[in-house]
Amino acid sequence: MASTTARIAIDAMGGDHAPDEIVAGAIRAQAELGVEVLLVGDPQAIESSLKQHTSSSQMEIVPAEDVVAMHEEPLVSLKRKPKASINVAMDLVKQKRADAVVSAGHSGAAMAAGLLRLGRLKGIDRPAIGAVFPTLVAGKPVIVLDVGANVDSRPKYLEQFAVMGSVYSQYVLGMEQPKVGLLNIGEESTKGNDLAVRTHQLLEENPRITFIGNAEGRDVLSGRFDVIVCDGFVGNVLLKFAEAVGEIVLQILREELPQGIQGQLGTALLKPNLKRIKQRIDHAEHGGGLLLGVAGVCIISHGSSQAPSIFNAIRLAKEAIDNQVLARIQSKDFQGEQQSAASTTEE
Amino acid sequence: MASTTARIAIDAMGGDHAPDEIVAGAIRAQAELGVEVLLVGDPQAIESSLKQHTSSSQMEIVPAEDVVAMHEEPLVSLKRKPKASINVAMDLVKQKRADAVVSAGHSGAAMAAGLLRLGRLKGIDRPAIGAVFPTLVAGKPVIVLDVGANVDSRPKYLEQFAVMGSVYSQYVLGMEQPKVGLLNIGEESTKGNDLAVRTHQLLEENPRITFIGNAEGRDVLSGRFDVIVCDGFVGNVLLKFAEAVGEIVLQILREELPQGIQGQLGTALLKPNLKRIKQRIDHAEHGGGLLLGVAGVCIISHGSSQAPSIFNAIRLAKEAIDNQVLARIQSKDFQGEQQSAASTTEE
Repeated sequence: MASTTARIAIDAMGGDHAPDEIVAGAIRAQAELGVEVLLVGDPQAIESSLKQHTSSSQMEIVPAEDVVAMHEEPLVSLKRKPKASINVAMDLVKQKRADAVVSAGHSGAAMAAGLLRLGRLKGIDRPAIGAVFPTLVAGKPVIVLDVGANVDSRPKYLEQFAVMGSVYSQYVLGMEQPKVGLLNIGEESTKGNDLAVRTHQLLEENPRITFIGNAEGRDVLSGRFDVIVCDGFVGNVLLKFAEAVGEIVLQILREELPQGIQGQLGTALLKPNLKRIKQRIDHAEHGGGLLLGVAGVCIISHGSSQAPSIFNAIRLAKEAIDNQVLARIQSKDFQGEQQSAASTTEE
Repeated sequence: MASTTARIAIDAMGGDHAPDEIVAGAIRAQAELGVEVLLVGDPQAIESSLKQHTSSSQMEIVPAEDVVAMHEEPLVSLKRKPKASINVAMDLVKQKRADAVVSAGHSGAAMAAGLLRLGRLKGIDRPAIGAVFPTLVAGKPVIVLDVGANVDSRPKYLEQFAVMGSVYSQYVLGMEQPKVGLLNIGEESTKGNDLAVRTHQLLEENPRITFIGNAEGRDVLSGRFDVIVCDGFVGNVLLKFAEAVGEIVLQILREELPQGIQGQLGTALLKPNLKRIKQRIDHAEHGGGLLLGVAGVCIISHGSSQAPSIFNAIRLAKEAIDNQVLARIQSKDFQGEQQSAASTTEE
């Protein structure tokens, strides 16, 4: 696939700003990234969004009759709505008409649709959502997984997350021999809850990864780790907290910097520097999470995504395709973890 | 106790900057807060720290021969070192020679010493460490608990944390009818891991608190909640992440703001505004966590605490004493939770 043009199915109906912002991001991606985009959803709504742009490039629309709303129970509605946009998008990958799916819709539904329609990679018990954070060290992002696909994880799942995260870090983020950490509340191997203590041992014994020990909350953004694994509950809390903190800091800067006459003058002078600061702090610049472990490239964007985030999500998808992330995960030897690779859905 | 001068025992040997910074914070607190401070530790070391200050006020030194170092296993060393400073400080409260303990030493040791020497309040199965965060709404702090005393919590523990946190929020932080949230990964009552789902139900049924629903990571600092309860694993990860994020943002500001000639001029003009921003972002301004649920007021400060943090920790202790937090927790009706109030230490 890497040698031909990557074809990416976009759930045009998913997210707070669908379809306008989704379509806008897709148009830009097709123009700038050399990918082919398939817009999945209500043809009328998509056409009307497309008309707002002067872009001359053709975009294929794949009709889908339904959409899974944010408040719906994912498994129930996916089954009740087989023609929902997220289902249709996943089917395109299954039928090899697309190489990847990008969705800013209901993240639980995207994950479930990926699992149900595409299945899991061999040797993976549970898919995980990975989120990429910038760190204090420029050019050295960290992938944290899982940030919400699984709660009540088992040690074996976290071990598989470590392997998948290492592949992603090496072949998409470009880190040589990625350093893996286990999110925990102390440095010692005996620290933490039952899950952490048992996972620590598995990671230490795994020859396929470079495990360098526990990562505390303060270490996540330090740049010391390339991959950090955790249960989806704590990962999700961390992700949403981090996103909010970025916004809060920017709000504090907006409130406090221009106070007083000196403040207004100083702020005006600092405009270019403040723009750079916003870029370093703002999580929205970073696109989306990768659903790792299903048999297809799936990027799950934030529900609040606007065009720039969708563009970045499509870029992520292209990188995962070009760098053959799935094949590389699959080529890792998962022997010893396969006996329980039976169930597909939530236990 | 509230009518007389509060007497506060300080573990002078605990923390990265002990005893100098601890003593400096204690001197300022005794001078400004109208409290009486007892410095617990090696008399020679404390005397030598005291000599660096010109303060004329008398401070009592309570000798302690030993100290629990940061790397030690708390339970083992507390038993092997009965005269360790943290043990001696707790004994002062037990003997009613002091009303509270402040320590920046080994936090696990402080918690264990509190439990072993003072015991638990009636009806409390597990003590919790509460951390107070500033929120987006000025003057509306939120207390998050537990941030590290317990991992692998049970629903019942979190319910007790909610009651203790509500008392603290109301009588120390001054919030009327504190709004309680359960840290979770979604808004719906069915969301989350097993612990969250079961705790949600307990909180909904508890008439002693005002439970307003789940709090996601993004809601922690929003000001919508006054009390947020969680297991100590996720709370500790969150606390340490939040502390680090504050430092990272300040570092980004220091790096980016003064770039270029315009940047240098603008930064100079913004000096007073930047100082205010630092105060709003910097977690170190906020003092320490309260160990809630033991039969004594115990403030656990960060290991890196310097004099201002110690001063703030002593102020917190004074407020907890003056507002009779322990008696108010004790006066809450914990019927129905008492059958299991037997074990004192980790299971």
